[in-house]
Amino acid sequence: MPISLVRETDVDVLVIGAGPAGLMCANALAKAGVNVRIIDQRPSKVAAGQADGIQPRTIEVFQSYGLAERLLREGNQMHVASFYNPGGHGIQLTDRVPDVTAPTARYPFEVTLHQGAIESIFLDSMKSMGLEVSRPIVPTQLELDHAQMADPNAYVARVVLRHLDPPEGGPSTEVVRAKFVVGTDGAHSWVRKHLNIAMEGSQTDHIWGVVDMVPKTNFPDIRSKCAVHSENGSCMIIPREADKVRLYIQLDSGGCEAVDAVSGRIDKKRMGPHQLLEVARKSFYPYVFETPDEFDWWTIYIIGQRVASRFSVGERVFIAGDACHTHSPKAGQGMNASMNDSHNLVWKLVYVLRGWAGLSLLKTYELERRKYAQDLINFDVDFAALFSGKPRTQVNQNGVSHADFLRAFQTFGGFTSGIGIHYAESAIVHYANQPCAAHVVVGQRMPPQVLVCVADFRPAELQDLLPSDARFKLLVFTGAAKALDTVGAAVGDLTVRFGRAVDVISILPYRQRDFTFMALPLPLRSHWSKVLCDEKDMRGRQGGSAYAAFGIDPQAGAIICVRPDGYVGMVAPLEEVDSIAAYFATFMDSE
Amino acid sequence: MPISLVRETDVDVLVIGAGPAGLMCANALAKAGVNVRIIDQRPSKVAAGQADGIQPRTIEVFQSYGLAERLLREGNQMHVASFYNPGGHGIQLTDRVPDVTAPTARYPFEVTLHQGAIESIFLDSMKSMGLEVSRPIVPTQLELDHAQMADPNAYVARVVLRHLDPPEGGPSTEVVRAKFVVGTDGAHSWVRKHLNIAMEGSQTDHIWGVVDMVPKTNFPDIRSKCAVHSENGSCMIIPREADKVRLYIQLDSGGCEAVDAVSGRIDKKRMGPHQLLEVARKSFYPYVFETPDEFDWWTIYIIGQRVASRFSVGERVFIAGDACHTHSPKAGQGMNASMNDSHNLVWKLVYVLRGWAGLSLLKTYELERRKYAQDLINFDVDFAALFSGKPRTQVNQNGVSHADFLRAFQTFGGFTSGIGIHYAESAIVHYANQPCAAHVVVGQRMPPQVLVCVADFRPAELQDLLPSDARFKLLVFTGAAKALDTVGAAVGDLTVRFGRAVDVISILPYRQRDFTFMALPLPLRSHWSKVLCDEKDMRGRQGGSAYAAFGIDPQAGAIICVRPDGYVGMVAPLEEVDSIAAYFATFMDSE
Repeated sequence: MPISLVRETDVDVLVIGAGPAGLMCANALAKAGVNVRIIDQRPSKVAAGQADGIQPRTIEVFQSYGLAERLLREGNQMHVASFYNPGGHGIQLTDRVPDVTAPTARYPFEVTLHQGAIESIFLDSMKSMGLEVSRPIVPTQLELDHAQMADPNAYVARVVLRHLDPPEGGPSTEVVRAKFVVGTDGAHSWVRKHLNIAMEGSQTDHIWGVVDMVPKTNFPDIRSKCAVHSENGSCMIIPREADKVRLYIQLDSGGCEAVDAVSGRIDKKRMGPHQLLEVARKSFYPYVFETPDEFDWWTIYIIGQRVASRFSVGERVFIAGDACHTHSPKAGQGMNASMNDSHNLVWKLVYVLRGWAGLSLLKTYELERRKYAQDLINFDVDFAALFSGKPRTQVNQNGVSHADFLRAFQTFGGFTSGIGIHYAESAIVHYANQPCAAHVVVGQRMPPQVLVCVADFRPAELQDLLPSDARFKLLVFTGAAKALDTVGAAVGDLTVRFGRAVDVISILPYRQRDFTFMALPLPLRSHWSKVLCDEKDMRGRQGGSAYAAFGIDPQAGAIICVRPDGYVGMVAPLEEVDSIAAYFATFMDSE
Repeated sequence: MPISLVRETDVDVLVIGAGPAGLMCANALAKAGVNVRIIDQRPSKVAAGQADGIQPRTIEVFQSYGLAERLLREGNQMHVASFYNPGGHGIQLTDRVPDVTAPTARYPFEVTLHQGAIESIFLDSMKSMGLEVSRPIVPTQLELDHAQMADPNAYVARVVLRHLDPPEGGPSTEVVRAKFVVGTDGAHSWVRKHLNIAMEGSQTDHIWGVVDMVPKTNFPDIRSKCAVHSENGSCMIIPREADKVRLYIQLDSGGCEAVDAVSGRIDKKRMGPHQLLEVARKSFYPYVFETPDEFDWWTIYIIGQRVASRFSVGERVFIAGDACHTHSPKAGQGMNASMNDSHNLVWKLVYVLRGWAGLSLLKTYELERRKYAQDLINFDVDFAALFSGKPRTQVNQNGVSHADFLRAFQTFGGFTSGIGIHYAESAIVHYANQPCAAHVVVGQRMPPQVLVCVADFRPAELQDLLPSDARFKLLVFTGAAKALDTVGAAVGDLTVRFGRAVDVISILPYRQRDFTFMALPLPLRSHWSKVLCDEKDMRGRQGGSAYAAFGIDPQAGAIICVRPDGYVGMVAPLEEVDSIAAYFATFMDSE
């Protein structure tokens, strides 16, 4: 028998596909110290176009990984949404509203930045940790050792990789054995197809063109997110970085030149950006768009609205991002849903790989994210229909009115901002005790609030105390009337049992002049910077609203347990501090 | 005659000394595209200790160079100042006040970060522009070609450099010919001595020890800036990054072991950090400081309060930073004054090198910065005496009371924050017309205000529209009642005459629903992002106070001309827009 010359390596996690979902996944795993490999079939990252809208919640997630600074520095911000409808000699301004209506959004705007720049943020972060994308590489085989699926430490997946551009004389094939595989390889996912996971849902008959350019126009709202409903079709403006805008242009499904009459598929050879701009001009009349010096990027697509039937095989291979859900881009969801799939999955993988939790924890990934993907499709069906619909006019009383559209825009505000995502009850989401922190919704992300550090009076954003570091955060709202020795002792026991997984932050209802953080029981002050109070800062500019905003009685206090991904796992009255140990025990082993 | 083997190179500016003043200088010159060389005698940057306090105004200056993000990420923040005085069985808390009292400070706190980390911020920024410090190198000769001093393009300075650690076989000497030389080589400046510039002022008899460490203490205010006056001496706490604190410890000038009785100089061999901590312990009683695991850095010094008799020779060689002023560190001035010397000088050098202004512009450097250095010494004499004085007690009624000290602390707040720096009238500071923008002080830095961009409704901090890019910013507060055609035409003329040196920003008093930025005369809208209005943002969180805060009539409007370093050069009513051309003509040539 000949000796195999194929290189074989072992990794904890193999990530297949280096788009936003894959990069979020690999970066977060590397940050947690996991041995991860990430491959991609493209020879380099995306250069222009593609997805580009980052929602308020996704900005918060970036911030939790220390990546928001650069996103905000490089990206364009959308603060306003404008609406144009038939009127005058063509269209006219109907309304302007805040683009983000979710009241608790820390960043009350969307960021637009082309996908390549977003990928670069992850690539640079990964590089600083010694991780790079192996490319161009495609997987050709994926086998699972079904006998060992229950052993989290077994390298159950054997993946054969083909190098598309191997170094001269180098091998073109290698084998990677992985404990877990994550398929983030896009809408045409090889991983999904290989696992025979079906996509459920349908293709719509909405056809849209997209053009990116630096516009030359007299349209006044060219720098706002703008929905234009005209009697000659619908358009949407998404302003972008570097003076560019993206136009989404509705194409007539019946008469669209780009659709092949036989196959029903888009044929991009039949139509180009000049024709797309020509269609847009009719919607924007009487405003004028001159032909730009160049088109930065363009495409044409039919909206598909589908969700994968399952997101995992045996909790050992997962799919995430476009591999498991596709929808229209106009609600600005795609890249956000994709990256947040990975954000949801990573800490669970980390806990299993560290031996802190069993494989069953990973079931909550599909539970939480598939439900969300379905909600997203349902929203998208409604929204896309409204958007593609004819406007209501004197003549067409069945058309979509501005009031209909605005209502949809604002009703779904919490959803489209990502702020309102609400995970169902599960091993890691316990709905009990909700009243003790009435305005903090268990299963939703922990909202922001400015607090003040007791030791140095520095104002601190609570969300900045909740980094994505794979630890649960126990927020002990101490209240004013409580003897804290019992709470301290119970928290002390907890940190002995689940120590490395739990970080403790204490929040006092107010400051007393002679109170020092050193007076708290030791388990409630792991570091001087983690004892805060609900007061205004020295300049009276911010802070002092946390107990009220969270619905916590300043006398009674409460405990909020925030998951490693920033979502509230449970709340408890201080008297029931033991219920936190019970919560952890449902999915974690004691040390 | 033998052929010279000594390498000779030409540069526009040679910077001698790569401490904070030199690095600020070289980085800013490189940013402006100037051919600059910077040398230093040390083989590497500072590793620990040294200066470390960054004031509110200096943070604003960092921001103007795009360097504040990292400073804020890495540094510690001081928001509060605490005062302890004799009482109880030793000392007790007397008062806590905001550390920064200047009401317009954009950053209402000081940042502490060790000098090496601050140097790294500049070094990395320079590296991204291809500039590195040549080291270890010392200058050994500096000759000026007096015949050519009036020609700004002449390489009038010939500097011989000696490489202290030349590559094997490489030359140990080279010659640099420079149009301008900046000596930022510290308190013992070779450049200053070589130019025979005298230091004026005196050494005090205040002796202080400094210890940096991670403290082990039960002192409650260990994370606040803290002035401790005890009957056993004075101490100051400066909390720092990475849980460290710096203790400034007053040493008795008569009995200080570290002073050599014969020379009167400090001999650091006679005393170490353990003895310094022992002295501090007496002041802090009854609070306890355990001996730390290690001392990060320590020193002992006698406060010298001196200013150089001049800051320049013929406007061709300059000294900046510690090379021209030394003072006590307790008011946290040293590094700030040094970096701001360079910040003041650089744009003037740039204008002369570009041929936009004559050499006489450079006279304003000494005019503005020497006056400031003298004010600083006067302040420092008073403050250091108060600080070193015995506290007032029952027994010692002549001592310094807390009220005295607090008054000094707060009176000098504008000064110590750097916010109140006020440059005198000169070619580049015209005091006329002050009433048309009554609350913007001509000669002081332009204060921050949040505005809202007309085109995209994004809130924008005015100071972020004033980057250190070597351009004057013309802030056109359009008012409501004005025909803007005349103003537009005059500004248009101005940008033709001084175009590359002038950036125009228009600020409307409020937003009108149907107003578009495209309606402004073209010279008043150089870019869509530079037309703003004085309104609250979409969420009603900030903005809408600029006209009132600046004392500008919302009907009448006004023009504010901000210098490239962020200081207000002049203001004018809209009717007198021509006075701006007259202002520029006092120091600039038309194109």
